[in-house]
Amino acid sequence: MEHSEDRAEELVALAARVVAAYGAQGLTCATAESCTGGLVGHLLTEIPGSSASFMGAAVTYSYEAKEKVLGVDAGLLEAKGAVSAEVAAAMAAGVRELYEVDVAVAITGVAGPGGGTPDKPVGLVHLHLSGADGCEEGRRKVWPSDRRGNKELSAREALAMLAGWAASRRDAK
Amino acid sequence: MEHSEDRAEELVALAARVVAAYGAQGLTCATAESCTGGLVGHLLTEIPGSSASFMGAAVTYSYEAKEKVLGVDAGLLEAKGAVSAEVAAAMAAGVRELYEVDVAVAITGVAGPGGGTPDKPVGLVHLHLSGADGCEEGRRKVWPSDRRGNKELSAREALAMLAGWAASRRDAK
Repeated sequence: MEHSEDRAEELVALAARVVAAYGAQGLTCATAESCTGGLVGHLLTEIPGSSASFMGAAVTYSYEAKEKVLGVDAGLLEAKGAVSAEVAAAMAAGVRELYEVDVAVAITGVAGPGGGTPDKPVGLVHLHLSGADGCEEGRRKVWPSDRRGNKELSAREALAMLAGWAASRRDAK
Repeated sequence: MEHSEDRAEELVALAARVVAAYGAQGLTCATAESCTGGLVGHLLTEIPGSSASFMGAAVTYSYEAKEKVLGVDAGLLEAKGAVSAEVAAAMAAGVRELYEVDVAVAITGVAGPGGGTPDKPVGLVHLHLSGADGCEEGRRKVWPSDRRGNKELSAREALAMLAGWAASRRDAK
């Protein structure tokens, strides 16, 4: 429990860094969340003033929502499955356009305890960042934790990706 | 800290009750979240099997997202403000149609510490539940807590509204 509490504080601290960086650079972001279920949005909005940079999240837990809300192609979902690099990329692009932001990150995975298959085990998560500046970044992770831990590790990774994108833009100036 | 941890466990327990009730009755739900930033979706998706009943969330932190994602009328937002009973009702109806679910709950408020006005103080939250069965329910709250506490109290209220709606449907049979 103490460990989980420590991890929660670490996540909020990371969210604060993202909000500070985006605020300082006048950047906006959004998230498309499947297995994290809104956790990244929750963490960002723990920070006062986050409304200046965080425009919102599309939590799309079903195939239908991924298609209807984010415009993910039904054929792609069918061919690759919801937990795939291709669908993560389509989710990120979809939410970036929907919320008209500078950058978006998408998370889709198998949080567990059920839903795993030999090809797509519990803990498998695809993350994808899509920037309006042309940057794209995909990451595949296999987390070793339980449902809550897998969600938290995914949220941390997504926040780190958002922070990294802002840092690279700042450094490029 | 211990208090916050207790509250977190209470919220997850309430989310588990919602997921169990919706699962048992074959009902689906979604959320439209402004000040809670995705916390309700996060709590529901802490529960294994929640994907059977929770279809997703629209976290709409900006005016633009409320209009574009949820179809809230720009004139209504202008006239009543984002934190109003009318906008909460429009958000709930919008996300219910977007996610094609049986019931949806919307939360819009002033989490703090900034953003309060004499008319709309920090802690003011409007919640609205909209059911495909014609049920509508609006609640106005003024929470006495800090940003995190106000978000948690709002999430608890939203989960209680979802639970109450399912219970009344079950009892009506």
